Amino acid sequence: MLVVMKKGSTKEDLTGVLHKITQSGLNGHVSQGVERTVIGVVGQTYPELRDILEFLPGVEEVIPISKPYKLSSREVQHENTRIKVGDVVIGGDELVVIAGPCAVETENQVLATAKMVKEAGASILRGGAFKPSTSPYQFRGLGKEGLEILALARAETGLPLITEVLTPHDVELVARYADILQIGARNMQNFTLLDEVGKTKKPVMLKRGMSATIQEWLLSAEYILSQGNRQVMLCERGIRTFETYTRNTLDISAIPVVKKLSHLPVIADPSHGTGKWYLVTPLALAAVAAGADGLMIEVHPNPDQALKDGAQSLTFDSFQQLMTQLAPVVSSVQRKLPAKPGDEVDK
Amino acid sequence: MLVVMKKGSTKEDLTGVLHKITQSGLNGHVSQGVERTVIGVVGQTYPELRDILEFLPGVEEVIPISKPYKLSSREVQHENTRIKVGDVVIGGDELVVIAGPCAVETENQVLATAKMVKEAGASILRGGAFKPSTSPYQFRGLGKEGLEILALARAETGLPLITEVLTPHDVELVARYADILQIGARNMQNFTLLDEVGKTKKPVMLKRGMSATIQEWLLSAEYILSQGNRQVMLCERGIRTFETYTRNTLDISAIPVVKKLSHLPVIADPSHGTGKWYLVTPLALAAVAAGADGLMIEVHPNPDQALKDGAQSLTFDSFQQLMTQLAPVVSSVQRKLPAKPGDEVDK
Amino acid sequence: MLVVMKKGSTKEDLTGVLHKITQSGLNGHVSQGVERTVIGVVGQTYPELRDILEFLPGVEEVIPISKPYKLSSREVQHENTRIKVGDVVIGGDELVVIAGPCAVETENQVLATAKMVKEAGASILRGGAFKPSTSPYQFRGLGKEGLEILALARAETGLPLITEVLTPHDVELVARYADILQIGARNMQNFTLLDEVGKTKKPVMLKRGMSATIQEWLLSAEYILSQGNRQVMLCERGIRTFETYTRNTLDISAIPVVKKLSHLPVIADPSHGTGKWYLVTPLALAAVAAGADGLMIEVHPNPDQALKDGAQSLTFDSFQQLMTQLAPVVSSVQRKLPAKPGDEVDK
Amino acid sequence: MLVVMKKGSTKEDLTGVLHKITQSGLNGHVSQGVERTVIGVVGQTYPELRDILEFLPGVEEVIPISKPYKLSSREVQHENTRIKVGDVVIGGDELVVIAGPCAVETENQVLATAKMVKEAGASILRGGAFKPSTSPYQFRGLGKEGLEILALARAETGLPLITEVLTPHDVELVARYADILQIGARNMQNFTLLDEVGKTKKPVMLKRGMSATIQEWLLSAEYILSQGNRQVMLCERGIRTFETYTRNTLDISAIPVVKKLSHLPVIADPSHGTGKWYLVTPLALAAVAAGADGLMIEVHPNPDQALKDGAQSLTFDSFQQLMTQLAPVVSSVQRKLPAKPGDEVDK
Repeated sequence: MLVVMKKGSTKEDLTGVLHKITQSGLNGHVSQGVERTVIGVVGQTYPELRDILEFLPGVEEVIPISKPYKLSSREVQHENTRIKVGDVVIGGDELVVIAGPCAVETENQVLATAKMVKEAGASILRGGAFKPSTSPYQFRGLGKEGLEILALARAETGLPLITEVLTPHDVELVARYADILQIGARNMQNFTLLDEVGKTKKPVMLKRGMSATIQEWLLSAEYILSQGNRQVMLCERGIRTFETYTRNTLDISAIPVVKKLSHLPVIADPSHGTGKWYLVTPLALAAVAAGADGLMIEVHPNPDQALKDGAQSLTFDSFQQLMTQLAPVVSSVQRKLPAKPGDEVDK
Repeated sequence: MLVVMKKGSTKEDLTGVLHKITQSGLNGHVSQGVERTVIGVVGQTYPELRDILEFLPGVEEVIPISKPYKLSSREVQHENTRIKVGDVVIGGDELVVIAGPCAVETENQVLATAKMVKEAGASILRGGAFKPSTSPYQFRGLGKEGLEILALARAETGLPLITEVLTPHDVELVARYADILQIGARNMQNFTLLDEVGKTKKPVMLKRGMSATIQEWLLSAEYILSQGNRQVMLCERGIRTFETYTRNTLDISAIPVVKKLSHLPVIADPSHGTGKWYLVTPLALAAVAAGADGLMIEVHPNPDQALKDGAQSLTFDSFQQLMTQLAPVVSSVQRKLPAKPGDEVDK
Repeated sequence: MLVVMKKGSTKEDLTGVLHKITQSGLNGHVSQGVERTVIGVVGQTYPELRDILEFLPGVEEVIPISKPYKLSSREVQHENTRIKVGDVVIGGDELVVIAGPCAVETENQVLATAKMVKEAGASILRGGAFKPSTSPYQFRGLGKEGLEILALARAETGLPLITEVLTPHDVELVARYADILQIGARNMQNFTLLDEVGKTKKPVMLKRGMSATIQEWLLSAEYILSQGNRQVMLCERGIRTFETYTRNTLDISAIPVVKKLSHLPVIADPSHGTGKWYLVTPLALAAVAAGADGLMIEVHPNPDQALKDGAQSLTFDSFQQLMTQLAPVVSSVQRKLPAKPGDEVDK
Repeated sequence: MLVVMKKGSTKEDLTGVLHKITQSGLNGHVSQGVERTVIGVVGQTYPELRDILEFLPGVEEVIPISKPYKLSSREVQHENTRIKVGDVVIGGDELVVIAGPCAVETENQVLATAKMVKEAGASILRGGAFKPSTSPYQFRGLGKEGLEILALARAETGLPLITEVLTPHDVELVARYADILQIGARNMQNFTLLDEVGKTKKPVMLKRGMSATIQEWLLSAEYILSQGNRQVMLCERGIRTFETYTRNTLDISAIPVVKKLSHLPVIADPSHGTGKWYLVTPLALAAVAAGADGLMIEVHPNPDQALKDGAQSLTFDSFQQLMTQLAPVVSSVQRKLPAKPGDEVDK
């Protein structure tokens, strides 16, 4: 962080700023230029410090030059974080496909979907037991019963589970069932929840908030990491813009940006990112071409019967087609898809 | 909600849509036009239903015509909701000014501020004991100790208290101290928290999320209302836009819009809305001119020593000036300020 | 502008940056700090220079500290610019109300509106002869015939005229009729048009682009000013955000921001800013409370018969009510309305 | 367009609405439902009609159901538009790469770049002779001299030229040199300019405005098409959002959306879309995976010496690498790259 002093600022102003910097547990180094005095702030700063210093008398401007996140930064850890869940590695050479229904509805629905997506090449099963809903009059998930249905599907297929946890109180319960805890976009800055999942030993997938900058997203990851849980993956799921044709605007450029700034794996969710099933495949291919480590895809045996988000869910057929179209794109960016059940038999 | 069928849609398509409507507990009324068939959906709908129906075969478009919120709607309750907190009425003829420090830091800081803002004409004391922070390395509030300091200030000044609650687990604790529970912008869609404060008997102030539409904001209010707590006030605190000169863009037009759509009182927060102290006064005046029922203003004895958000806090002097400038604007829109301590003596 | 060098940057890197700065006609002053080297760039910089320097080897970050606009800056001219149009002064103590129909349709429509708005206290007549339309299949204005109708209304009422010019080729024609040339939001960065109106001697009102930052807006004003035309006023008319309930989001905070950064007068346009007639009055009051120098209001004798933007136009009755409600708000912020026709008789 | 009447609306209200519809040259068909009356509007509507009708007494809401653009719509023309420029076909099976410097600076710069990009597989040469600049103090292009340099490069390499035209007055001049006329993002709603290029016989590339919806973009294309020029291609170049890490947010989802709604070819510009050279390649691959018909890439022999947009320009080496990485991605989506100069020799 650099503090640029005003042209006419006084010695007292300078002392005041240096005092405030020391008071915040940091050090200030003064560079006297021809026109202006600039103070370099050394130590671990944070975004709000900017406002605090900028407000002081004699200060022209405060400029953040070091990044406010640390543990999630590639400067701190150069190598990619790889997260192992059962046999699946997220953040490695293989592209990971997470698939399943938006919400858990019935045992049949989940089992049928789980078998199908496994068959088609998915590595992890998704499904919501606790669902956030914009309106209180909507379906909010089956809760614990939903978790049990998911566990059954894991037992039958061997697919690890990812499911969302909505509130700190449920972390222990959800962690008993899930292999990966999902933090939804609306909870990206639910800091108590972040602390709580940070205290577990479970991998966490942190979705980007609807209007979160990339820096805020990494700072939320920092909450989890700083509690000692280093198994964090990020999920780009679209940001809110003025364009309403799509439900959100999937920020594909965030994928290579995050890969540059951070060592954490990045998953793309074209289902929520677009809100329309016919856009899921082109955006899934685009995300992979841009460097995503994985995809999160909503699949439903009968999307038109779905209790939630049917419009963005793929049918079994469309999902199989997606996986078929995916294969050459994955190869084209020097990655691979995991071996499919059928392939393994051949070995 | 209207379902517009495609020109070439079949009888089976129509039957399918009607079936889905019935399955969702609603009724469908068919209007056969010259060019197209339109189905009116009768009953309490919700935003996601649009996606569900739009996805069905033969459907051209689904159009929401009734509002998805009910209890917060002015159609359901025509008269303004008035919330009584001690002697203060929010949503009545008098403009309510809520003032105090962003975060509770010390007893001295809070007591001095409380006395001053009361003197200057504020009706309610604000102060954060549990603070949401973008970075885990920042000050996160004094917690329970902060609540006790606030209670002390109430005892000394008689001002009712508003303070933020961050997580469902803390609702009971915070409700023991606070007169009004504040839900912050980042928690506007923390539905478990909304349920929890909805179960208390305490008035709740619900801040608008950074990227929440007015409809989503009212739906979040609906969560609280539908739990039986009808003492809800809304707070416009700025939305996130492309403009970065201000911290947020205070959406002044949301004030008359919400007053038209809903019977709930609306407070404006120009401190967070702008992030710069010198914009607080002009935006406070603007909010009142546009019809706000109250203001929420950050005040600090030494903003340059503040642990949080000093840049947007008014000094005691600036706050007094704001109150002086406020008076004629309040009169100009046929409202009044409450009698000040000094005035009461005169009666 | 400050150039912050990377920690491990070399002497060659530094030389390269200094060379580039000199090549751009500017000077670089090196400050060697404990941890990093910082170069101050002295001279008139511009936004893109940041990208150019940031790209050079060894550069960590480039930070703009001086503003890229000059003639529009309050640092260069401390006193408010006052623009005199006939008897009307824009940017002085009196609030200026500009009113009239969105588009010129008929002589009757314009004459009736002009007389009424004058009667009610407006100082300037607005009306579009050349209209920008999103679709090619819509009404695009009466052109020269419209200008003649406007001139007739000026002759009858004495009100000065403001009307939009869409293209450099029409500047000469429009300037022959208009007292103030209006540049619409869609043309804020039509630089050839800005140059052209900059070459006239006519006052210019520059509307903010739908997605223009305040800095970009001032830079567009700079185009006009740098051609020698110093009679520029700015008009805030709403920015595009994710909220779709209002047509645009009127950025009221931009008013005090621009008053601080620049000496140019600021007008607010709540008609385009909200797109809904019932929001025009509250937002007009808010803009005045926030410090606007004037208002631009659409008025139509029969809004439901209007060829363009009827939904945001006030009827004669609503406009009179607005003017009545405006008076006390104007006084409350220590400004005044010009004497009305009737008032003058009394003197 | 559907007009939904209020529950309590009268016969007079209905007559008024029908009258307005007829007056606008359209027909209204009334459907009397159980709860509400709905009027279907038949004929070519336009966005503002919604506001006009919504304003009428008795109207609850107006819902656009038919699209306001016609000639650009896939409903009107099912087959893809293919634009032939010399030997190059845009919108066909082959992916078209347009490459070259942001601004024309010198003959050497353009010639060297043109030869290199041709060698590497580009089909069309780009280069700006008239440059839009946010600030009046910046480089604004070489003008006619720049066009001559471009023509020289075409003569030497055989590559067709695309270059921007900024103002209606220059259309004739630029069309004498260019093979494709480019309309920049800031001019997407410069309707006089759109009319003018619509009157030429030259192919036009229309960039999306920074805050333009997909519908507005197609309506701007409609301006050109309705003048009789059917050789229009669209270019997605990023939209303005709250995220500032990237210069714009490249809206990759707009590519498949436009391909669905329209028959016009779509080009992606990852250089302007991201503003950072190291993001150009991943976003270029993503755009192709999502279905883009072509790419527009800025290349400069010495980006650090560029007069404009060096930070987003690729070096010769990086461009060659991009083309190498592109090949397998292009194949993976069943398209091909044109044969390169070297390849032709082999035939």
